[in-house]
Amino acid sequence: MKNNKTGGVRALQKEKTRRSLIDAAFNQLNAEQGFASLSLREVAREAGIAATSFYRHFRDMDELGLAMVDESGLTLRQLLRQARKRIEKGGSVLQTSVTTFIEFIDKNPKVFLLLLREKAGTSSAFRSAIAREIQHFIVELVDYLNNANGMPHHYNEAQAEAMVTIAFNAGAEAIDFDEIKRQKLIEDLIFQLRMVSRGAYYLYHKEQIKAEHR
Amino acid sequence: MKNNKTGGVRALQKEKTRRSLIDAAFNQLNAEQGFASLSLREVAREAGIAATSFYRHFRDMDELGLAMVDESGLTLRQLLRQARKRIEKGGSVLQTSVTTFIEFIDKNPKVFLLLLREKAGTSSAFRSAIAREIQHFIVELVDYLNNANGMPHHYNEAQAEAMVTIAFNAGAEAIDFDEIKRQKLIEDLIFQLRMVSRGAYYLYHKEQIKAEHR
Repeated sequence: MKNNKTGGVRALQKEKTRRSLIDAAFNQLNAEQGFASLSLREVAREAGIAATSFYRHFRDMDELGLAMVDESGLTLRQLLRQARKRIEKGGSVLQTSVTTFIEFIDKNPKVFLLLLREKAGTSSAFRSAIAREIQHFIVELVDYLNNANGMPHHYNEAQAEAMVTIAFNAGAEAIDFDEIKRQKLIEDLIFQLRMVSRGAYYLYHKEQIKAEHR
Repeated sequence: MKNNKTGGVRALQKEKTRRSLIDAAFNQLNAEQGFASLSLREVAREAGIAATSFYRHFRDMDELGLAMVDESGLTLRQLLRQARKRIEKGGSVLQTSVTTFIEFIDKNPKVFLLLLREKAGTSSAFRSAIAREIQHFIVELVDYLNNANGMPHHYNEAQAEAMVTIAFNAGAEAIDFDEIKRQKLIEDLIFQLRMVSRGAYYLYHKEQIKAEHR
């Protein structure tokens, strides 16, 4: 019994250190420093452990990197859930989604730095892990759209993909922007997302009308 | 007279070596090797000059990098010009533009690798140089749209930005794709660009109709 308890404490401690390593690595990312230039030694130091203890948690820096991508995926899913909750309370869908998105970037700038940089980066493990997380995000958005507008799946898929691409790119720019430029960016983003949404609607209904006249 | 001639030959030779250095640097970029990991020594070797002679052409690797971005900008402008010529000969505007775009990526994969990677990279000099080139590209596209559809500038600006964002992202994916996946990607891209274009048209005309009824 006592052994079990100690084991539990130890597992908890291990999880806590793992968490600290992930946090330290995110913390050391910035505009000038990408994942590739992080040093294992520096990350371990910030997490408060000896460099040699790092290997009890991750095989190497790349494995830590993939854990960071997993973490980013969870953050993206929270983002969607929060936007959905707010939309249920009423208000413009696009406005609410974009506001929630920009808030999330402010709260998690490092997550977006990692995703956007490594999405087209030199590590193929990173590229495919990130592509997978973004794909999850798109799939959830498609589900939402399918329920909301009743249009065929492939319309919503194309629409969701275009929207996520536009929003993520705007998000990357938002990180560097001051408040005034950011307000303009938010307006532009909403305008562009509305174009995609109206365009999908228009293309679908034009096809419907054609089909009815056949 | 003779001196002048020799000077001309020398200038020509210098330009040729500069060209070789840019070509060698592009050539050494690939899926696993980004600009940051290029070595001056390796680039000079491939260009057929001694490493010490490199400095007669560029102050450092970063200056070479910026020359590569300038070069990429020229390539983008050629792309637009070629698409426009083909469109004048008739055919679907979107289909022709996308086909021309994908052909260009095939001919200049390294240009797109550089632009897409460094757009969100750690060098702020690179980030702003690339943002500027993409902005040029968007401005030319807006001019084209203004002439073609007569819609207000800010509709065409938002439309052009959204289209370029979507197309460049698809272009980045196309580099890794085989022929079958690529065909699907081209179809999706055209579908998404059509959504943006129809959406802009729809939003504008809806506003027009509202204004007429006021």
